[in-house]
Amino acid sequence: SVKILISNDDGYRAEGLRVLRESLAPLAEVTVVAPDRNRSGASNSLTLDVPLRVFPYDTDCHVVVSGTPTDCVHLAISGLFEHEHDMVVSGINEGANLGDDVLYSGTVAAAIEGRFLGLSAIAVSLVTRPGSGQHYATAGRIAAELVMRIQRSPLHQATILNVNVPDLPYEELKGCKATRLGYRHRSEPIVRSEDPRGRPVYWVGPPGVGQDAGDGTDFDAVANGYVSVTPLQIDLTRHSMLEDIGNWLRGREA
Amino acid sequence: SVKILISNDDGYRAEGLRVLRESLAPLAEVTVVAPDRNRSGASNSLTLDVPLRVFPYDTDCHVVVSGTPTDCVHLAISGLFEHEHDMVVSGINEGANLGDDVLYSGTVAAAIEGRFLGLSAIAVSLVTRPGSGQHYATAGRIAAELVMRIQRSPLHQATILNVNVPDLPYEELKGCKATRLGYRHRSEPIVRSEDPRGRPVYWVGPPGVGQDAGDGTDFDAVANGYVSVTPLQIDLTRHSMLEDIGNWLRGREA
Amino acid sequence: SVKILISNDDGYRAEGLRVLRESLAPLAEVTVVAPDRNRSGASNSLTLDVPLRVFPYDTDCHVVVSGTPTDCVHLAISGLFEHEHDMVVSGINEGANLGDDVLYSGTVAAAIEGRFLGLSAIAVSLVTRPGSGQHYATAGRIAAELVMRIQRSPLHQATILNVNVPDLPYEELKGCKATRLGYRHRSEPIVRSEDPRGRPVYWVGPPGVGQDAGDGTDFDAVANGYVSVTPLQIDLTRHSMLEDIGNWLRGREA
Amino acid sequence: SVKILISNDDGYRAEGLRVLRESLAPLAEVTVVAPDRNRSGASNSLTLDVPLRVFPYDTDCHVVVSGTPTDCVHLAISGLFEHEHDMVVSGINEGANLGDDVLYSGTVAAAIEGRFLGLSAIAVSLVTRPGSGQHYATAGRIAAELVMRIQRSPLHQATILNVNVPDLPYEELKGCKATRLGYRHRSEPIVRSEDPRGRPVYWVGPPGVGQDAGDGTDFDAVANGYVSVTPLQIDLTRHSMLEDIGNWLRGREA
Repeated sequence: SVKILISNDDGYRAEGLRVLRESLAPLAEVTVVAPDRNRSGASNSLTLDVPLRVFPYDTDCHVVVSGTPTDCVHLAISGLFEHEHDMVVSGINEGANLGDDVLYSGTVAAAIEGRFLGLSAIAVSLVTRPGSGQHYATAGRIAAELVMRIQRSPLHQATILNVNVPDLPYEELKGCKATRLGYRHRSEPIVRSEDPRGRPVYWVGPPGVGQDAGDGTDFDAVANGYVSVTPLQIDLTRHSMLEDIGNWLRGREA
Repeated sequence: SVKILISNDDGYRAEGLRVLRESLAPLAEVTVVAPDRNRSGASNSLTLDVPLRVFPYDTDCHVVVSGTPTDCVHLAISGLFEHEHDMVVSGINEGANLGDDVLYSGTVAAAIEGRFLGLSAIAVSLVTRPGSGQHYATAGRIAAELVMRIQRSPLHQATILNVNVPDLPYEELKGCKATRLGYRHRSEPIVRSEDPRGRPVYWVGPPGVGQDAGDGTDFDAVANGYVSVTPLQIDLTRHSMLEDIGNWLRGREA
Repeated sequence: SVKILISNDDGYRAEGLRVLRESLAPLAEVTVVAPDRNRSGASNSLTLDVPLRVFPYDTDCHVVVSGTPTDCVHLAISGLFEHEHDMVVSGINEGANLGDDVLYSGTVAAAIEGRFLGLSAIAVSLVTRPGSGQHYATAGRIAAELVMRIQRSPLHQATILNVNVPDLPYEELKGCKATRLGYRHRSEPIVRSEDPRGRPVYWVGPPGVGQDAGDGTDFDAVANGYVSVTPLQIDLTRHSMLEDIGNWLRGREA
Repeated sequence: SVKILISNDDGYRAEGLRVLRESLAPLAEVTVVAPDRNRSGASNSLTLDVPLRVFPYDTDCHVVVSGTPTDCVHLAISGLFEHEHDMVVSGINEGANLGDDVLYSGTVAAAIEGRFLGLSAIAVSLVTRPGSGQHYATAGRIAAELVMRIQRSPLHQATILNVNVPDLPYEELKGCKATRLGYRHRSEPIVRSEDPRGRPVYWVGPPGVGQDAGDGTDFDAVANGYVSVTPLQIDLTRHSMLEDIGNWLRGREA
């Protein structure tokens, strides 16, 4: 059967991880390798300066001490296990990963690190809001449906799907939409504070609201009750500018 | 005059940072905000769980304690200073940032975090090899030339240039090439080791060699003595697959 | 009933903590506040540069993210809870805390941080050896006996008991002995190693063997199958030298 | 000539370290091994879970990345260098280390870690107050005088001196006093705060004021303009209670 590696960035104790594991267990052989604590905002960071430790939490669940999501997937597919995995599913993240969020998201990074495996990688996030119901079961069911579809009808290698699920009962979803990433406004300013000894410290502020949240974007889909599914690429080349940059480098105006 | 924010991922004491600062000082008003130690591999990670501290190292050089490159640029452009900066230049990284490296690179991440500013962001890396000469001065001169060109002939907003400079004397460079990112093979396997108490630990292994290193790639350019200049985008949407994914989600084969 | 605060330095998932909790639950109202991972060697270190986060693991068990043992006890008795605790019991540590070990031990530090409470603090360690049976139940029973005795017959305020239990079935223990701390030889040298990129790193080596392990010491007691109980003080003044130092400062020979 | 190892807990860039180094350089061959950042509150903590990195800052100054004061001295005397050192001098700490402070102090811990060397170890702290003048030069001169006295008239092996210097011009000092450690009241309560996402965090509060600050204590000496010199021991056994504890363990009332 298909071997799925599960990870996340909220840490191994997170509710979303538990639901994801339960949702996929009937479909595949699942192994969890997850960080020992919340690593939201970890992006694709890899731990290079110190070695990592792994402890078994239970059968098929391993925890990487001080590990990032990328560390977890990297270890899992680069020698920690004897067998190969077929795909990575990451999440279910507590909170949206929309637009620019994907640059910083550890959930998406875990999926990206699975790009070398045979089947598509999926990052799943639940678009919670203050007071929303935390319908992880909805997101778990969507994850299972996508995995089944991938098994039946595989996408090209190295396709990474960024999936955002509205925080609603499954029956209230309007459907799934293929979307492009929108953009956010700049973040809120940093928050100055003081430690109890009177010394200044600075917190990174909340992300900005959606700026390009128009038709076709992931922001728009979830705002209207759709599951947003965005195919991601890991080639960051801005191909459309290659010729311009070539001219510009040769001294002609771009 | 133009206000340039300088950062890096090798930490504020790095030789590459010193050279970059000296190279740009004649052209602009420069401010350095850099991590307090080596944060290679930090990618776009943002520190969200704890607040950050900043100490002034000297005039116009500020150090963020335990900060990532993204933290540094984020703080600098989100409220740490009263004035706005015009652009970010990041580096000079000790070692190449080619192909998939850009996903993990803190140097590139610092430039990406500067995407909201008025002028292009630049990430500069020196393609050192064991025994190579560490020609930071060459990379510093290239950085200065690019900054001058951007001042004279600005690129579109939000363009990020990933620049890799061969580790050669300036006179031996063949020129500059606009390139696309190549791809690397999968990383080397993780390295198992033991602590002195006999417990297993795992090191992340070295990156793989270039797999797609053919014509037009950044790998190819630097291998042939050219400065590689790759325009980056921060929209990770794989636009070419949007229609396929739409069909696939509606149950038709992709 | 008596309110006991339990902590440790091996982290909240440690077997020794679980056994200690179960052993004391019948005797008292127990609350666990423990680090989220292994913090062996943490000594009395307090986290002053960043704020701490606490998450509830289950009823009566709270976990301090990135917290030291001292952080855990400090938070617990300095405002995290509305009620006061009567005493701290720390452990059961995996491995001995004998002689100089107490200077570095997080297990002992957790007990020391409880010195302001009404009843004695106890640090419990299991003297495991490679291949020994890991008789945590033995240590749990000893801890319970000591707590019962303290309830019945309290010691002076601020007495801290450092308890080391041989790793044997309870029936094979020879009894309990009041002991003084022995001394260890200097540690083994540091262990030089290399990361996969060829850069040097250094591991702290294992502790030295017992140098003063003679009659009356904790080393001697456990080697002979006794539970070692050492009363600790937190006044580090070397009173016997006060006069000498006074003379020495006045320029007379010490 | 005498070989002195200098360390501190405020990090290698601290003013106090610089002054200490300059004060002792005329008297001895000095080597600095210091943490890369502020590690106040580190106590005797040793880094056991990851290996340490060391970088040379300048001739005779080495910096331990993410190292504690104890790590620094441990590395320095356990194999980092080919030669042996004769004594450790630690500081000059920014702020007092009086009474219970010594349990948590990284400055004192660095001195304690030097207990195996041939000559006495010294921890030096400047008793700064808000608005006080930061007379590091005063403390540096006192440190030099004590080192000279130790060279001329050595104390018993393993004597550790905890020295607190009033923040005054040297001429205004009243002299040196041999003191015992006083006690502090319990710390201020923890300080509850929130991160910008509305989640609770807790800061460790400031230390309590001196409770036992009477005649003969270190608190009293510095309050009256004297340099306080407290001989410390590293044997934490409460010898005066050994017999009581023995009786108590045998079931007789203590």
